Amino acid sequence: MTKPGSDLKVIAFDADDTLWVNEPYFAETEQAFMALMEDFLPRHTTARELLKTEIENLPLYGYGIKAFMLSMIETAIRISDKKIPPAAIERIIGLGRTMLDKPVVLIEGVTEVLKSLQGKYKLVMATKGDLLDQERKLSKSALSGYFHHIEIMSEKKEADYEKLIRHLDIPASSFMMIGNSLKSDVLPVLNLGGYGVHVPYHVTWEHEKVEVEIKNERFFAVDRIAQLSEILDQTY
Amino acid sequence: MTKPGSDLKVIAFDADDTLWVNEPYFAETEQAFMALMEDFLPRHTTARELLKTEIENLPLYGYGIKAFMLSMIETAIRISDKKIPPAAIERIIGLGRTMLDKPVVLIEGVTEVLKSLQGKYKLVMATKGDLLDQERKLSKSALSGYFHHIEIMSEKKEADYEKLIRHLDIPASSFMMIGNSLKSDVLPVLNLGGYGVHVPYHVTWEHEKVEVEIKNERFFAVDRIAQLSEILDQTY
Repeated sequence: MTKPGSDLKVIAFDADDTLWVNEPYFAETEQAFMALMEDFLPRHTTARELLKTEIENLPLYGYGIKAFMLSMIETAIRISDKKIPPAAIERIIGLGRTMLDKPVVLIEGVTEVLKSLQGKYKLVMATKGDLLDQERKLSKSALSGYFHHIEIMSEKKEADYEKLIRHLDIPASSFMMIGNSLKSDVLPVLNLGGYGVHVPYHVTWEHEKVEVEIKNERFFAVDRIAQLSEILDQTY
Repeated sequence: MTKPGSDLKVIAFDADDTLWVNEPYFAETEQAFMALMEDFLPRHTTARELLKTEIENLPLYGYGIKAFMLSMIETAIRISDKKIPPAAIERIIGLGRTMLDKPVVLIEGVTEVLKSLQGKYKLVMATKGDLLDQERKLSKSALSGYFHHIEIMSEKKEADYEKLIRHLDIPASSFMMIGNSLKSDVLPVLNLGGYGVHVPYHVTWEHEKVEVEIKNERFFAVDRIAQLSEILDQTY
């Protein structure tokens, strides 16, 4: 492992399940959806069908709650063989609206970490999802003052990070990305020559899971975001 | 009128109905939706109910096709008193998916204008809507090479333009915005001290309509985008 030195200029944070709680809201909604569909299919089959719809819809709808709402409605119509009552579809829309109105719960240690890094590095938030919804969460989080730049991305692949890093006008070796998804936050940045820090979250969406062993000098894994200090050699 | 001089640095273009055709696709879909709902309500009542739902949903869903799809579904359930058959909801989703797959048709003169301005000014695209959908349209349009910066905005109010202009690191007086909506493209920028150019499009969404007489030295109105040359004193 190579600890980052003075070449490190920009630290970017994923938002959902890195700065604040997100996946549990999806999981909770999925539970309610599965219960709603129990007249038609057993729960685990509904879950599988929903995941299938979501993945199929990703290229068309992208990430976020509105896409999730549409995928639930489509799944409900399909697995009920068009027999789902409109009142149940109304209920699904209600589930989505509730998600859009959820409080933003910060993950432990986040504010302290951002506070300690502010001024020493340029801090960026880099997240997928609905534009409006992420802005809403950022505003509710009261974290926006820490960030020099907010990037809401339709995808988090190598090309997307390349664009972001070019926009920041730094070499990839001066860029560090921190997030809970190896697939979306860590691997593409390592591939570009940046630093990648994995901070796992206890729930990960099926589609974000990867099984890999990462051998890279610039890769770090910590259990909690507060442990960033161990990598950045700072005390707070 | 004050013709912009050498202080003008950045020219920003709205996208939907300024660079490419958009509103007719919404209008066409709305027609199909009204036809679908005719068993329950006369067409003009459906149109009014849909607009009401859309405006109510704006703060929660924002702009774009996914929001429009959800608003159509909600309207259908409400005005049918929950009697809309699931097959009709499936049809509504189909209408939205068709919209997401529409070809991008450039408005006459756009490519020539961008070509003539490139290199002389920093060109920006500043648009509302779904992140992924706008990226898709930009990519299909083959215009992305002309733009230094793409800004997809959840709103186009004064504060949003203020943020964009600050991000561009110029004074408002060096910024010009060109678009088909007086309300979203022109007025907020004039209020900030920038230049605003109105290029009307033959269809305007009800919610974007304003009736105002604009008295501002930095306001320009042209019939077609090609007439920008008359303002910028260039020949092409």
